[in-house]
Amino acid sequence: MKFEINRTHLLNGLSDVMKAISHKVTLPILTGIKIELDEQGVTMTGSDSDITICSFIPTEEDGELIIETFEKGSIVVQARYFSDIVRKLPTETVLLEVINEQDVIIRSGRSEFKLIGSKADEYPILPNMEKDIQFTIATPLLKSIIRETGFAVSTQETRPVLTGVNWVKKEDALYCIATDSHRLARRITALDDLPEGEFQAVIPGKSLQELNKIIDKEESVDILFTEQQVLFKTERILFYSRLLEGTYPDTTRLIPTEYQTSIVLKSKEFLQAIDRASLLARDERNNIVRLVTTDQSTVELTSNSPEVGKVEEIVAATSIKGEALQISFSAKYMMDALRAIESEEIVIHFTGVMRPFILKAVDSEAVLQLILPVRTY
Amino acid sequence: MKFEINRTHLLNGLSDVMKAISHKVTLPILTGIKIELDEQGVTMTGSDSDITICSFIPTEEDGELIIETFEKGSIVVQARYFSDIVRKLPTETVLLEVINEQDVIIRSGRSEFKLIGSKADEYPILPNMEKDIQFTIATPLLKSIIRETGFAVSTQETRPVLTGVNWVKKEDALYCIATDSHRLARRITALDDLPEGEFQAVIPGKSLQELNKIIDKEESVDILFTEQQVLFKTERILFYSRLLEGTYPDTTRLIPTEYQTSIVLKSKEFLQAIDRASLLARDERNNIVRLVTTDQSTVELTSNSPEVGKVEEIVAATSIKGEALQISFSAKYMMDALRAIESEEIVIHFTGVMRPFILKAVDSEAVLQLILPVRTY
Repeated sequence: MKFEINRTHLLNGLSDVMKAISHKVTLPILTGIKIELDEQGVTMTGSDSDITICSFIPTEEDGELIIETFEKGSIVVQARYFSDIVRKLPTETVLLEVINEQDVIIRSGRSEFKLIGSKADEYPILPNMEKDIQFTIATPLLKSIIRETGFAVSTQETRPVLTGVNWVKKEDALYCIATDSHRLARRITALDDLPEGEFQAVIPGKSLQELNKIIDKEESVDILFTEQQVLFKTERILFYSRLLEGTYPDTTRLIPTEYQTSIVLKSKEFLQAIDRASLLARDERNNIVRLVTTDQSTVELTSNSPEVGKVEEIVAATSIKGEALQISFSAKYMMDALRAIESEEIVIHFTGVMRPFILKAVDSEAVLQLILPVRTY
Repeated sequence: MKFEINRTHLLNGLSDVMKAISHKVTLPILTGIKIELDEQGVTMTGSDSDITICSFIPTEEDGELIIETFEKGSIVVQARYFSDIVRKLPTETVLLEVINEQDVIIRSGRSEFKLIGSKADEYPILPNMEKDIQFTIATPLLKSIIRETGFAVSTQETRPVLTGVNWVKKEDALYCIATDSHRLARRITALDDLPEGEFQAVIPGKSLQELNKIIDKEESVDILFTEQQVLFKTERILFYSRLLEGTYPDTTRLIPTEYQTSIVLKSKEFLQAIDRASLLARDERNNIVRLVTTDQSTVELTSNSPEVGKVEEIVAATSIKGEALQISFSAKYMMDALRAIESEEIVIHFTGVMRPFILKAVDSEAVLQLILPVRTY
C-alpha cells in the first residue's frame, strides 16, 4: 500500500473512526485502525466490538484530488499514535507506505515516522447486514430522536436491556422509548417509508450518543436492522452497533391518560428556576425539589437542605387547571426532561402525589417525558 | 448587613476570591467567603491558609452606582454555594441581607435563598504587612516573569523549597529562579524602584500561578515582603501568599559560561519538530529525544520506541558553531523551555554530552533556560 493524501481529509475521517476506539478492549488488534486503499479511495475502520465505525475518503471530491494512489493494499496501525501523528504533521500532503509487510511509513515535509503495524487480515470482519429491514431518516430528525430519548436510559448494568433505547415500529410510526425505571422518554415519529410489518430492537444508549457526534453533514441516514446488529449508513460513514438482548418491558401501562392537575409553563423560565431551586441539594444523591400550586397562576418551588439553607422560587404559570397540588421530584430528572422538549411552552399533567406525571410541548404529542415523583415527609 | 449590588460586579469579584478556596482545608471556616460592607464598598476574602485573596468592589465606579448600602456589617457564607447561586440568579440586581445574626438572605427577582452563614469574627485575620520591602512591577512584566519561571518549580515535596520560585534582589535587578534539579529557569529584570539593600524570598510556584490568573486589568502591581508573607496589591485585589522556609540552593555554579557547540534555530519550527519527535514515547516517564548535528546547517531529531516505531525529524538551523554534537534530553523539558522564551529565534549553547545546556533568545539575556541532558546507551 502506498498513497499520498490530503491531511485535512485524513484527519476528519480519523476523528470519526477514533470514536469507536476504546482503551479497554479484549482483542488487542482493536487498539488499531484498519486502513484499506482501493480505486475509489481510503476506508478506515475502528471498533470496540460493540460499535464499529467505517469512514470513507474518496480519491476525488468536487474535482479536487484528495488521494494519489501508487499501490493498493491494507494495514492496521496503532490508533492513538496514528491519530496523534497525523494531527501534528507539518504539511498538508501526507505519504503513507507499507514496507516490510507490516511497517508503516508516514512522511510529511522533513518529518518521517515508522510505525509497527499489523496485517489487515488479522482484523475482525464486519457484521453481515441483510437488507430485511431498511428505512431512511433525515439527519436532523434522527439527531432529535436521539437527543429526546437517549439521556433517559439506565446507567446501571443490573438490567442491561434498560441501557438501550427501544425502537418499535407500529403502524406507520417509529416509537423510541427509554427508561431507567424512575423516568421515561418517548418519541413517536411518523415516517413514510417504513418497511412492512412490525419490528422491534433495543439499541445501546451509548451507541446512539456516539452516532449523534459523527452524523451532521449528510442529509439523511439509511438504517438497516438484522437480528443482532443495526447499521447507520451515510455516504461517508458506516456505523454498526450490536443490539441489546432481552425483552424490553411494556411501558404503555405506565403512562397516565387521565389527569388531576395540568400546568402550562414557559419552559426556559421554569428550567432556570428548577436549576436554582436544586442548587443547595446538589451534593445529595437525589436533589429533590418541591412544587406547590399557590393559586391559579403561580407555582412555588422550594428546597431545604438543613445544613446549608433553603430556597424559594416563584414561577408564573400560563395556566393551572384542576386540583391544587403539592409534589416532590428529582430536579435533575425534571431538567433533563425540560431540555429534551423543544418548545417555548410545556404542559405538565399530574395524576396525584405518588403517580407518575408527564411533560409535553403544548402543541405537539411527538415527545412525551414521564417522571416518577418522590415521597417526602 | 444589608445591601443591593450589581450581579456582574459581584460575580467578577467572586471569581477572583474563589481561586483561593480549596476543597482540602484544615479550618472549616475557610470553606467560606468573608463579606464585609462599609462606606467604600464590599470586600470579599477567601483563603486556603497558604493563599489569601481579598477582592474589593467600590460603591460607585465611573459615576455608576454598583452598591446601594442599607446597613453596614459582615458575614461569612459557604463559598461554593454562594458562588453557584450568584452565577444563576435571574436579575442584575441582587439583595444581600443578614438576619438572625448569621443567616444570609439572597434575593433576586422572584428567587430567594436563605444560607446558613458564620459570624465574620470567626474568620482568620489577615497577615500584618509592614512596608519594609516594597516595589512596583508593571502587570504585563510580572505576568511574563511568572510564565518564564513558574513552570520549572519542582512538583515533589521531598525538597519543599524547590516548589517555589527564588526571588533575589541583587544590585538594581530582580533575579527570579526556579529549578526542579533537572532543569532551571532564570529571569533577570532590571527595575528602577527596587528598595535599598539585598533581599531574597521563595514564593510558592502554585501561588504565582493563581496570581497570574487574576491580575490582568490593572496597570501595575505593588509587591510587599515580610519575613513570612508576600503581598501583591492592585486597586481591586490583595493577594497574600506565605513564603517557603529553608535555604534555596546556590544555582549560579550550575550555569555554564563556556560552550563547545552553539546552535541557532527558529523557535516555533524546532518546538513543533520536538513535539512530533516525542509522540511515540509519550507513555514513558521521560520521553527522550536525540539531537544530532548532521552538517553546518541541519540538526536531526530522532526517537525510538521499540514496541511502537521510530521517528526522524530534520530541522534547518540558522547557524551551527563549534563541535559536532550528539545529545539526548527530555522532550517535555525542551518544549517547556522553548515556550518560555519569547523570541522567533533561539540559541542553544552546549558544553558536552553530559553537561547542562542553556537556551536563550538570540537578542536578549533576560531569560535563561537550562536543561540537564539524559544519558542514553
